[in-house]
Amino acid sequence: MTVIDDSPISVPAGLRNVAVTSTELGDVRGNEGFCHFRQYSVVELARSRTFEDVVFLFLEGRLPTATEAAELAREVAARRPLPADLEDALPTIAAGGATAEPLKGLRTALSLLADLRGIPPLWDADPATRREHALLACAVTPTILAALHRLQAGLDPVEPRAELSTAANWLHLVTGEVPGPERVRAVEQYLIATVDHGFAASTFTARVVASTGADLFSAVIAAIGAFSGPLHGGAPDRALAGLDEIGSPDRIDAWVRDKVRSGERIMGFGHAVYRTHDPRAVLLREVASGLGGELAEFATAVEAGVVEVLAELKPDRRLYPNVEFYAGVVMELCGIPRSMFTPTFAVSRMVGWAAHVLEQATERRIIRPVARYTGPPAPQPVPAP
Amino acid sequence: MTVIDDSPISVPAGLRNVAVTSTELGDVRGNEGFCHFRQYSVVELARSRTFEDVVFLFLEGRLPTATEAAELAREVAARRPLPADLEDALPTIAAGGATAEPLKGLRTALSLLADLRGIPPLWDADPATRREHALLACAVTPTILAALHRLQAGLDPVEPRAELSTAANWLHLVTGEVPGPERVRAVEQYLIATVDHGFAASTFTARVVASTGADLFSAVIAAIGAFSGPLHGGAPDRALAGLDEIGSPDRIDAWVRDKVRSGERIMGFGHAVYRTHDPRAVLLREVASGLGGELAEFATAVEAGVVEVLAELKPDRRLYPNVEFYAGVVMELCGIPRSMFTPTFAVSRMVGWAAHVLEQATERRIIRPVARYTGPPAPQPVPAP
Repeated sequence: MTVIDDSPISVPAGLRNVAVTSTELGDVRGNEGFCHFRQYSVVELARSRTFEDVVFLFLEGRLPTATEAAELAREVAARRPLPADLEDALPTIAAGGATAEPLKGLRTALSLLADLRGIPPLWDADPATRREHALLACAVTPTILAALHRLQAGLDPVEPRAELSTAANWLHLVTGEVPGPERVRAVEQYLIATVDHGFAASTFTARVVASTGADLFSAVIAAIGAFSGPLHGGAPDRALAGLDEIGSPDRIDAWVRDKVRSGERIMGFGHAVYRTHDPRAVLLREVASGLGGELAEFATAVEAGVVEVLAELKPDRRLYPNVEFYAGVVMELCGIPRSMFTPTFAVSRMVGWAAHVLEQATERRIIRPVARYTGPPAPQPVPAP
Repeated sequence: MTVIDDSPISVPAGLRNVAVTSTELGDVRGNEGFCHFRQYSVVELARSRTFEDVVFLFLEGRLPTATEAAELAREVAARRPLPADLEDALPTIAAGGATAEPLKGLRTALSLLADLRGIPPLWDADPATRREHALLACAVTPTILAALHRLQAGLDPVEPRAELSTAANWLHLVTGEVPGPERVRAVEQYLIATVDHGFAASTFTARVVASTGADLFSAVIAAIGAFSGPLHGGAPDRALAGLDEIGSPDRIDAWVRDKVRSGERIMGFGHAVYRTHDPRAVLLREVASGLGGELAEFATAVEAGVVEVLAELKPDRRLYPNVEFYAGVVMELCGIPRSMFTPTFAVSRMVGWAAHVLEQATERRIIRPVARYTGPPAPQPVPAP
């Protein structure tokens, strides 16, 4: 496409389907129902690898050997404890009252950590230093989120445990306990499935900030802001609230008909990119079923009910569960409180944001579009005051 | 342009010259050397209006009557003092040591204020509430920046004064004194000239975050991150450091020749958008000359020297001073310490960011581009661990 400097190019609203840059980190193929991290299927990675393996894959570009994976796990674990200055500030950050959210507090805490540590701009940092900042952001995020949650719940924060995996340590930090290996693995599979997913608005935000050469913390803090927006998606607690609303299997049919009639959105169904099954939802349905119990069965019945009623009422419109739908079920079954569902998502997505920032740092080009002015013609004379 | 859902549209790298949305807030016409806020010339506004008039113009869409301007000034002044919780946290935020910067601390402090106040998502806020958050962000920004500066300099913060204009109060907060009216007016003209300037990366970042429906503070905090990047521009202290380096008028010619020979960038000259004079630089040259003194004369001589030597050595390349060049001179003449030049820029630009967030909030559409995957073909089988 030829660029003529002084005639701005118009693109579809919201940059929908506009390829703004290139990435080697992965992709989402909406029509196929397929997503991948680097050259590997997300679902296959979640089935056969650990979260630490996937972190290594994002940061280093390949899967680790067992020794390398253990070394990365040690590096992450060493960075989990918070500096005393930051720990002292957490009660103030957590004190926002009824509207306080660990995710907003994470933004403040990471910003304060960056102030305390003096994180230099990406362009003044060599690759090893940038990687260090990425590891630090990923390692402290669970510690901060869980501490804010516990402070807000009137509980004492618990110390991170270096010998635990990211998933086990997360459950320990949030609940004070490490559940059995099935539950740890279920949460780990959720974390793997949600590390990255194309150019979500939060990921794009991180890359725009990184494109100015700003520091990695500035970029991920900005991403957290975008992530908190209602249109961003990724609120598994909303989908679970739908299940509560239905209550029992005999009410599924009537509930779905009612939603369709009133034109309300069915939370946990539908996706901006997938035109078929969200492969992460398929994975997490299996994970939930593996954990067993009424909730998993009920969720499967609701999925079937939604699909069936829609096939009857709106034959031309197919709706599939998205990642949120079974994510909420998995987290509920693993003992994560609902207010910590979205923060759990942030624990994994932080790795994706950090990797995108590191990739953007290798391109020395600012992302700077223009806007089309649509106000009254200028200049008009300025009236006297 | 027709959008075919499954073939991403490629656009120029970095979205250069791509019109991503529309705005009524203003525009920059690079070839004409003209920029405007709504329908009015920026330069004309800076010549004849107050900063508060321009804030009103951005927030309300028109210039105020004298009564309206006074009312807005009262509203801003009432929001300048910081809540006690935030004030108590400032010493911790300021304590980042040698690398601490008021601008990074501003990000932390605004994030904490949002935690303490519980700022709701844009989409849960009616227009009056959104305007309240915009006013709050604009009003506390000078208080926070100046307090962090004074704490880092070992001085006690001073209390904002409600009866002062934004410009006078800013000088009072930073220096502890209010200089004569010429200097207050000079700083006010700088503030007016830099409220907004097209889709700078920080402005675009704020709009991407706002497009998710996130809260106004999340959006401006993200913007601060982008603003801190070395490629963003807007560091008037760098331009002044160049003047120091030259030292005296007789060394201008040799210095410029040396820079051109070594291919180094001449800080304070050249702009990504302007192909002719930056109208804000022309304005600020007049403002600097009005203040008088050696520095203003020296800067004018350097400008002439750069233009002359370049005309000889690179006849096809014309360089003009940008807004940073004379901004540094004006701020230095008004007693603002150099470390507070960029924070002064943030005081005015916060108004622009907030106005862009309010405008974006009226479009319920997420900004979400895609990236082109350029890694190895996927899927490849995941090797066993």
